[in-house]
Amino acid sequence: MSRDTRNLKLIVAYNGARYHGWQRQAVGIDSVQLRIEQAAKRVLKHPLSASGCSRTDAGVHAEGQVVNIHTTNKDVPMDGMQRAMNSRLPDDIAVRSVTVVPDDFQASYSALAKTYRYRIFTGPQRPVALAGLVWTHWRSFEAEAMRVAARRLLGEHDFRGLAGSLVERKTTVRTIYRCDVVEKPDEIQIFVTGNGFLFNMVRNIAGTLLDAGRGRWGPEQIDLILKTGDRTLAGPTAPPDGLTLMRVHYEPRFEV
Amino acid sequence: MSRDTRNLKLIVAYNGARYHGWQRQAVGIDSVQLRIEQAAKRVLKHPLSASGCSRTDAGVHAEGQVVNIHTTNKDVPMDGMQRAMNSRLPDDIAVRSVTVVPDDFQASYSALAKTYRYRIFTGPQRPVALAGLVWTHWRSFEAEAMRVAARRLLGEHDFRGLAGSLVERKTTVRTIYRCDVVEKPDEIQIFVTGNGFLFNMVRNIAGTLLDAGRGRWGPEQIDLILKTGDRTLAGPTAPPDGLTLMRVHYEPRFEV
Repeated sequence: MSRDTRNLKLIVAYNGARYHGWQRQAVGIDSVQLRIEQAAKRVLKHPLSASGCSRTDAGVHAEGQVVNIHTTNKDVPMDGMQRAMNSRLPDDIAVRSVTVVPDDFQASYSALAKTYRYRIFTGPQRPVALAGLVWTHWRSFEAEAMRVAARRLLGEHDFRGLAGSLVERKTTVRTIYRCDVVEKPDEIQIFVTGNGFLFNMVRNIAGTLLDAGRGRWGPEQIDLILKTGDRTLAGPTAPPDGLTLMRVHYEPRFEV
Repeated sequence: MSRDTRNLKLIVAYNGARYHGWQRQAVGIDSVQLRIEQAAKRVLKHPLSASGCSRTDAGVHAEGQVVNIHTTNKDVPMDGMQRAMNSRLPDDIAVRSVTVVPDDFQASYSALAKTYRYRIFTGPQRPVALAGLVWTHWRSFEAEAMRVAARRLLGEHDFRGLAGSLVERKTTVRTIYRCDVVEKPDEIQIFVTGNGFLFNMVRNIAGTLLDAGRGRWGPEQIDLILKTGDRTLAGPTAPPDGLTLMRVHYEPRFEV
């Protein structure tokens, strides 16, 4: 990284309903990365790529996706860049902040932890204004049973049993720092913070905790899933709609 | 209407963002009416048409659109019909209720009044999760100034000055029964109830009240618009996104 470039950290929010996920796809397929890169090119006036921390799937949302962009343009001030980006983005994507970070910052590799939220709508009527933003159930759940099960996920475990079918990672061991179940009117929200997540892991956690909340099994099922690594012991994969990447956590020198 | 048919009143909610309005269009164009008719045909098993009370424009939403359908099918119970319809509708359209009403009920012609809500988002950040559901402004408004202006709209007036360009109706006189301005966190909501609305009238009222709320003019401007019928004296037409048809009001024998 030369002195003539700046490393930009962008915090980006989006409603993923209209997009085929974060990652740029074949020509003609709309993605959030494509939109961010198009807007950034028009503002910074040079070719660039925008690296996201998390490759959110189609239909998954973000309040705090983190993106980094290397630029040779030193003329655009950072607050001006946020406004200029937002004026070139559709109303379901927003840049929340733009800051200059040390050259060695990489949105994905520098991440220490991520926090996701999963929203389950439990009210009596289909919530049309929340279409695409929640997983809708017409039953009630025992939030306390979900909390007891959620506590069993905390700490370092092999999460193979809560990962999507094919796991290509070197290790399936991850650490969960927080897993909270929050009750709201007509809604249950699950917040999970961990140092990393396997494919579909948060959606599988959501499906499994809901099964605990409707009494399908007790909290000891979590121990069994973690011990055996058997995916068939866990609950269903919750749909992408309810999932939002809330925040990515970095070491203090990158949290500017 | 023979004894062998039943007249059904459906209350329907939808997020209009993905649809080209209520009204059925050319083949290949998605509309809420098309979706409702498709679902109803599958449930009732005969050709039918679904008449909506309000032809909401593309991007306009409903919590209480009223639809009527004549059916010769007497086998389907009404609560079963609601469930059966909802299982055949996408997650941004919902049937809230189905009831049998007197044969002379017509969703549009029987309406005594309609209530609309217009949502303006005034928070500091683009509300990506509300994309398509609000009109976003990055300024604050004087709600009290809006209320004072809104009161001048109450009663019977010629609303030509607040109608869309081409008015084809016989009369442009309408009565507004209620026009409330409600403050919520990061949001202003306008509720309007009237015995009828001209094309774009609610959206023009919203644009005009917002102009009052940012001090562009005082409440006497409303009197001037109503007196002269001059559209150029009013504010801009607010976008469809913020508009929701909340409720249609009928005489008691139809309110079952």
